[in-house]
Amino acid sequence: MALIVQKFGGTSVANPEKIKAVADKVVDYHRLGNQMVIVLSAMAGETNRFIELAAQVQEFPDAREMDVILSSGEQVTVALCAMAIKEDGVDAVSLLGDQVKIRTDTSHTRARIEDIDTELIKKHLKDGKIVVVAGFQGVTDYNDITTLGRGGSDTTAVALAAALQADKCEIFTDVEGVYTTDPNIHSGARKIDRISYDEMLELASLGAKVLDIRSVSFAKRYNVPVHVRSTFTDKEGTWVVEEEKEMESMLVSGVTYNKNEARITISKVPDTPGIASKIFTPISNAEIIVDMIIQNTRAGALTDMTFTVPRLDYDRAMEVVKKVADDVGAERVDGSREITKVSVVGVGMRNHSGIATTIFQVLAREGINISMISTSEIKVSCVIDEKYTELAVRALHDAFALDKDNVTDDSHE
Amino acid sequence: MALIVQKFGGTSVANPEKIKAVADKVVDYHRLGNQMVIVLSAMAGETNRFIELAAQVQEFPDAREMDVILSSGEQVTVALCAMAIKEDGVDAVSLLGDQVKIRTDTSHTRARIEDIDTELIKKHLKDGKIVVVAGFQGVTDYNDITTLGRGGSDTTAVALAAALQADKCEIFTDVEGVYTTDPNIHSGARKIDRISYDEMLELASLGAKVLDIRSVSFAKRYNVPVHVRSTFTDKEGTWVVEEEKEMESMLVSGVTYNKNEARITISKVPDTPGIASKIFTPISNAEIIVDMIIQNTRAGALTDMTFTVPRLDYDRAMEVVKKVADDVGAERVDGSREITKVSVVGVGMRNHSGIATTIFQVLAREGINISMISTSEIKVSCVIDEKYTELAVRALHDAFALDKDNVTDDSHE
Repeated sequence: MALIVQKFGGTSVANPEKIKAVADKVVDYHRLGNQMVIVLSAMAGETNRFIELAAQVQEFPDAREMDVILSSGEQVTVALCAMAIKEDGVDAVSLLGDQVKIRTDTSHTRARIEDIDTELIKKHLKDGKIVVVAGFQGVTDYNDITTLGRGGSDTTAVALAAALQADKCEIFTDVEGVYTTDPNIHSGARKIDRISYDEMLELASLGAKVLDIRSVSFAKRYNVPVHVRSTFTDKEGTWVVEEEKEMESMLVSGVTYNKNEARITISKVPDTPGIASKIFTPISNAEIIVDMIIQNTRAGALTDMTFTVPRLDYDRAMEVVKKVADDVGAERVDGSREITKVSVVGVGMRNHSGIATTIFQVLAREGINISMISTSEIKVSCVIDEKYTELAVRALHDAFALDKDNVTDDSHE
Repeated sequence: MALIVQKFGGTSVANPEKIKAVADKVVDYHRLGNQMVIVLSAMAGETNRFIELAAQVQEFPDAREMDVILSSGEQVTVALCAMAIKEDGVDAVSLLGDQVKIRTDTSHTRARIEDIDTELIKKHLKDGKIVVVAGFQGVTDYNDITTLGRGGSDTTAVALAAALQADKCEIFTDVEGVYTTDPNIHSGARKIDRISYDEMLELASLGAKVLDIRSVSFAKRYNVPVHVRSTFTDKEGTWVVEEEKEMESMLVSGVTYNKNEARITISKVPDTPGIASKIFTPISNAEIIVDMIIQNTRAGALTDMTFTVPRLDYDRAMEVVKKVADDVGAERVDGSREITKVSVVGVGMRNHSGIATTIFQVLAREGINISMISTSEIKVSCVIDEKYTELAVRALHDAFALDKDNVTDDSHE
């Protein structure tokens, strides 16, 4: 008998019909002898509806009150699902964030889970019930309702699995798992069977939408095996797990891209100590998140500074940067919205030199100019012109033979 | 500086525009130096929407889960209202039933309030905030969400006013107060300025829809002055208060009617001890609520038994009664859906004989046959043919001169 946490997103519970289908599925697992804890999101569209309502009464909606409204969405789906399970003849109970005691910090609309009390859930499981927990929500020490931000239900599920020491956490979604790249761009994209937390972190943060990044960190920290799979089939999806020996024999796990950033370059900045701080402090004060930062050395006492910001913040960022450029005596500020960050990810890189070289060669061969490069132990990212996105992704995917199991020679030794 | 509890119903908070209007109104009171506690219902229509959703997943929706869903309606309105108040520049905070700790029994969907913790509300009031409380909902000792049933927000408001020892409890609604009779039936209907709890109880239970009956009992028990008034004007409405000396000089306060009942008569029942119990036990076992019961004495050992049941339960009740009639050897069962109970209410009746006589004379003069009569200290009810409802109400209203202040001669002594 296993203890399983399963999470279903907004499209899986979008109406009573779909909620009944989820209930049927969960009841099947229960009847096989498993203890089941279910985490649900709000019905698809509800969150946006609530945000629109709030926008009509307050220009900058109060975050505490926003959370009170937002959390009501999951409240409806968990109760409906508990009802549907009971209709299937199995006992069930819904629990909200404050009823479980999913304790968070006080950062409304983007709270972090600090602690989960498992006592009540365990009691209900012991009584033979399926426990249906509202995702995305928690409660502060002052009994105020909080929400965890978009994708927060994934985090609830993984955190619950960790706290309950569940055997696995299954994230049901509308795709069949994590792919080597976007199947819409490359028909050769292949579903990955097993991937390490670290690789998934790089993929998640780089734009793969299947799993919220915070839930992956959580899974890694508590070593929760996460199974990303489709709501609509019984096929195995992708397991996100601790790094395994065999994974290292895979040079590369995936190629991903992110079109949500924009590039800003400040040219000919006087290269004095503290210059970076002078430039980036006002940007962070404006609550703009800077991702990549590249500083080129120029001959002489001048330097160029290039960095990326969220595309939505581009105009605001340019305004701030132009002012800063004046202050520090830089010659010029320019930038572009039309960029893409293409990334190649894989734990196998650690032991294999030459991955970056291959990437540069492939892109050069296709005539694609690289404007920025950033690397980590298991990732190489290149910023290129947006218009080359699909071409670059396909070329890199093919170069690393990701449509096949791209195992290195070492593995055959 | 007064402490005021104000309640706004579903039509007053039906959309963001209306919620902003409520906020504006409440902020005006606050700026006059009052401490304000606001109780809100769900947006009009939400409760029905939730009931329909639940009906789609479970044939007989689980009451505990139903309450989880239903309570989410007020959750949205209180947060939106708190936002709107903040937008007006006054600090505000929303509180749900479990946050206040409105402790109820465990009768889901029709729970009774047992206790209210006022500490948190008082703290927020002390901090200068307007406190917006979700009506209709509470929480059990086990931290399960409960709801109080239709009209429950009135009860929440009055109970809060009692617990907080508020100076008054104002119930805002879509009418201007309590009327001497239904203005749709008699253009001479007059708004009552002050009415006693007992009279209001009779009026509320007899069909006047302005104030939930349980809230009136609560108000009476804790002596909370309740002001029923219109959301859309600043005019004084009707004060529901402890009985006052002057009230007794009013013979009659109002004429009301109730079309929601049906009559059942069992004829020629053997009049043996325990016969009433034999008849009514199966009916109450079927959870049908019997209102009026009249037993006529016949010559000999037979009797007739007539009673009223909710019109919606008529068919079920007839089925039960026919079986019982067979068992006890009664001759005949008949009944009618087309009846109305017309009632005349007034604390002045206590000291004045002849009110009932006047009623019977008035109805006789109009050619209206009375099929049942029931009286209490401050009420006379007559069951008549439904088709005479309007005629009877107008005739009685005129007979007691309710369009004027119908003060008795005593008051002029």
